[in-house]
Amino acid sequence: MIALQLRSTEELSQMLNLAMSESDFMRGENGLNACVSYVMDQPGKRFRPMLLMQGCELFGGETREAVHPALAMEVFHNFTLVHDDIMDKAELRRGRPTAHRVYGENNAIIAGDMLLCHAYALLAQAPARVLQEVLMVFSDAAMGVMEGQHMDMDFERRADVNEAEYLLMIEKKTSVLLAASVQIGAIIAGANKNDQQRAYDFGKYLGLMFQIKDDLLDTFGTEAEVGKCIGGDILQNKQTYLKVMAFQQADTILTKRLNEAYRFRDEDWKVAAVTALFEETGARKAAEAKMKEYHSLALQALEQTEVESERKTALRLLADDIYKRRH
Amino acid sequence: MIALQLRSTEELSQMLNLAMSESDFMRGENGLNACVSYVMDQPGKRFRPMLLMQGCELFGGETREAVHPALAMEVFHNFTLVHDDIMDKAELRRGRPTAHRVYGENNAIIAGDMLLCHAYALLAQAPARVLQEVLMVFSDAAMGVMEGQHMDMDFERRADVNEAEYLLMIEKKTSVLLAASVQIGAIIAGANKNDQQRAYDFGKYLGLMFQIKDDLLDTFGTEAEVGKCIGGDILQNKQTYLKVMAFQQADTILTKRLNEAYRFRDEDWKVAAVTALFEETGARKAAEAKMKEYHSLALQALEQTEVESERKTALRLLADDIYKRRH
Repeated sequence: MIALQLRSTEELSQMLNLAMSESDFMRGENGLNACVSYVMDQPGKRFRPMLLMQGCELFGGETREAVHPALAMEVFHNFTLVHDDIMDKAELRRGRPTAHRVYGENNAIIAGDMLLCHAYALLAQAPARVLQEVLMVFSDAAMGVMEGQHMDMDFERRADVNEAEYLLMIEKKTSVLLAASVQIGAIIAGANKNDQQRAYDFGKYLGLMFQIKDDLLDTFGTEAEVGKCIGGDILQNKQTYLKVMAFQQADTILTKRLNEAYRFRDEDWKVAAVTALFEETGARKAAEAKMKEYHSLALQALEQTEVESERKTALRLLADDIYKRRH
Repeated sequence: MIALQLRSTEELSQMLNLAMSESDFMRGENGLNACVSYVMDQPGKRFRPMLLMQGCELFGGETREAVHPALAMEVFHNFTLVHDDIMDKAELRRGRPTAHRVYGENNAIIAGDMLLCHAYALLAQAPARVLQEVLMVFSDAAMGVMEGQHMDMDFERRADVNEAEYLLMIEKKTSVLLAASVQIGAIIAGANKNDQQRAYDFGKYLGLMFQIKDDLLDTFGTEAEVGKCIGGDILQNKQTYLKVMAFQQADTILTKRLNEAYRFRDEDWKVAAVTALFEETGARKAAEAKMKEYHSLALQALEQTEVESERKTALRLLADDIYKRRH
């Protein structure tokens, strides 16, 4: 393995943007391609591709080899958003009307299908020496994400979701793709199996932390920082780590009050009452403690990778950013 | 290239069945996996996997290397059926309730997504030396199929679809996957680019012929042989080669009569009247002539492949079977 100079996050970001702009997501001018472009044009954190690039950097890989697989992660993620929005009957996504609202459900189904194929086509540009391995890791993750979405929908109809089930659901729905992103970066860089597992674990804990933070911000963030109305999850009676822990930790009286609060008709009252009960039941504390636990598990996995410490700086910072993020 | 003994169609079929039964399409016991199994359990001609295996046999490849990619074609085809049935709001598929009718639309969307991933995961078991090439050919075909489905839906809202547009639609929706199947078999067998193109063309013309035959059987077949009600396409006002050619070849008077016939309320009268007009306008003759043209183009492509003539026997017979099939 030739030691390479570390690239900055900005540099990686530029490589991604360039590759993204060169990708051919629009063939022809019909409603289907317009829908695909609409989905790909939405602003995103590009969190998954960055993790893949950083995973490759961590183990001293050739970053150029990681660019297209990295994009595959973003494209796959966008695919999941389109289909999830159809299934969840969502009207808005990041402040814009969802794809199926603009282009109709049928176009959105096919656009999602095409994005899934695009993702694989980008992945196929991984170096031939690791392609089979990369495809297997990716396919497992992809099917995990789908199982996670299925669990999530199933949970919406249930009142008795427990902590372990909820954590398994977010691990599948969110974490495995982040974990696979870091691992695929590691595979491209030629990391050994042990280091690949650590890379995977780092991404997994990062993802779990990310999701619990999401749940926290939706209730305890500020509208100015988060960029959307606070309390949306509460109003939709969504299963979140906070809700699951609130019910799990509530005694009989608090359970009764939680059920009452979730039935309030007035939206402001409902958000205020449930939020107060998230404090009172200790659900907020539990969520913050869980985040802290995952943060340290992520860092622990990172520290165990057998590379020079300075190579780990970017991912350490990334984990800290997610831990502290306010939007 | 080592010359191998030719395997019989029965032998290839057994290899496919064995691999299919060993494939793990059901993980866990929830509604999602039940839906995936339901889709995979439907009886099918296994036409696409057989074409891939035969494409490999044609060029003297190692058939065992083709089995999983062959299955990928069947799984991909089943994926398209699930999603198409949702989009077309179809109630029945091969006499059984469609997956979304049994398991709900959301389960059917995810089940389709999972099958698409399964297809790629099976394809990833192609020999590493050709994997990248196989993935690219497959992804192009897959996206072509999706564009074809989009065109098909678009045509249902239009009255002015012409022959060229219709042929492009069926080429995409049906033919490119058959073409890619034969080509991928050829790639695995190590065929050169020219022979790959001939393999592709053979599959393409076969597919076009197959689809026009489908259109013909739906109107001119017998219920006993076809196994479904005759005239379904007419009752649904579906764009078929027959309908397109009938309108294209009709003079003013026949056009008026066609429009009237398509508006008949009585189902039996409608089928009878439109069927008669397919004869009168020469649409049936045009369809039969087109089939004959594609049959000979398919055979021509096959004859041009640079392999011993006896290797071509199975595919010649297959083309003849499709040309003559009555169900």
